Amino acid sequence: MNELIYEGKGKKLFATENASELVAEFKDDLTAFNAQKKSQEAGKGALNAAISAKLFGLLAENGVETHLIKPLDETRHLVKKVEIVPIEVVVRNVATGSLTKRLGIAEGTKLDFTLVEFYYKNDDLGDPILNDDHALLMKLCNAKEIEILKQKARKINEILLPFFAKVGLNLIDFKVEFGRDHNAGGKLLLADEISPDSCRFWDAKSGEKLDKDRFRQDLGGVKVAYEEVLRRIQGVL
Amino acid sequence: MNELIYEGKGKKLFATENASELVAEFKDDLTAFNAQKKSQEAGKGALNAAISAKLFGLLAENGVETHLIKPLDETRHLVKKVEIVPIEVVVRNVATGSLTKRLGIAEGTKLDFTLVEFYYKNDDLGDPILNDDHALLMKLCNAKEIEILKQKARKINEILLPFFAKVGLNLIDFKVEFGRDHNAGGKLLLADEISPDSCRFWDAKSGEKLDKDRFRQDLGGVKVAYEEVLRRIQGVL
Repeated sequence: MNELIYEGKGKKLFATENASELVAEFKDDLTAFNAQKKSQEAGKGALNAAISAKLFGLLAENGVETHLIKPLDETRHLVKKVEIVPIEVVVRNVATGSLTKRLGIAEGTKLDFTLVEFYYKNDDLGDPILNDDHALLMKLCNAKEIEILKQKARKINEILLPFFAKVGLNLIDFKVEFGRDHNAGGKLLLADEISPDSCRFWDAKSGEKLDKDRFRQDLGGVKVAYEEVLRRIQGVL
Repeated sequence: MNELIYEGKGKKLFATENASELVAEFKDDLTAFNAQKKSQEAGKGALNAAISAKLFGLLAENGVETHLIKPLDETRHLVKKVEIVPIEVVVRNVATGSLTKRLGIAEGTKLDFTLVEFYYKNDDLGDPILNDDHALLMKLCNAKEIEILKQKARKINEILLPFFAKVGLNLIDFKVEFGRDHNAGGKLLLADEISPDSCRFWDAKSGEKLDKDRFRQDLGGVKVAYEEVLRRIQGVL
């Protein structure tokens, strides 16, 4: 067994014989509200691994470089080793969740433009929101990287939004993480995952939620929803 | 008596016979933590009116246009009527208060550069922090105004920081508000006040707090501290 080098809420990372590659294993754990709410859903890791592999493939074809080398099996991806930028980049098309609570924007409001937010990836502090200067001051990234993070986040949205529309899903918002590839001069690669754990999808017809909000809000049918997202993606990718 | 047109936590605004002018009356009320903590301190309004008049005068001499026309008496300023931009602009030189709590930056850390933060001026929401895109999205101001607000905030700091150093006070951070002068094409003027209610001052030698933190933290001697700030300012202005 390879050495476990990191365990997060949704994935474990293992070393490989190649110092520049890791194995990411998707877990069945479900967590919300900074892990104050926890559960498990057998098969969830495999669903997210499959969905994320498909989406990372789509993004790579469209010019967004990712850490993914290839899926290894149902729950594991072979990925490039990167230094994760400790910023959760959130992209929003429609107001819901913390945006409505914090700023009083009505639930379901279609935003006039795509909103990009940075959150400091720090569980002890509850992932506080940042402005650009906070990110610089705390040396989380440099000024050029801030612009690249925003550009890449918007580009991912421009690719995913019409893609999900084609399969009858409204992409409400999503969170992405990036890492520096020190074998390529610190180039920023999309890392982590894109899955129903990190996105909000509302069915275009019924408005039904097909994402982790089913767990956050005790709506039930978490796995069925994730399976439905995978089924729709597999229909076109 | 002129018509009361607005009452905030620290001031009342009255109409005048001139539609483009108002009277701002400084109150003795002390509030903190979004008015969850309240008190009164007789004479506090007069102290802030005097301190703010001196500082606004200093800033005007140095090219920062303000709403202040002239002080009328101990507690009242005649001011230009402006449309307040609903953003509290916070400028920080040293980490304390919400910055240390939210982001884990150690209390008293001298920041590598002057940090400017925007907060949405909304008591019901607890004045939530904003990034630039939130301000645009919520139409609180336009993109050009965002840059002007930041420039003006930094310029005020560049004037006040050495000024207070001369009188033995470390200017730790402060909050300013701006308003649009619709008699001058919407030009942004410094409005509201600059006082120990809206600044943090630490004595350069003893580190003693000479500002509203004496009230927030139940340190006592609020009025003595505000008097000391006025005394030092009057020594040089």
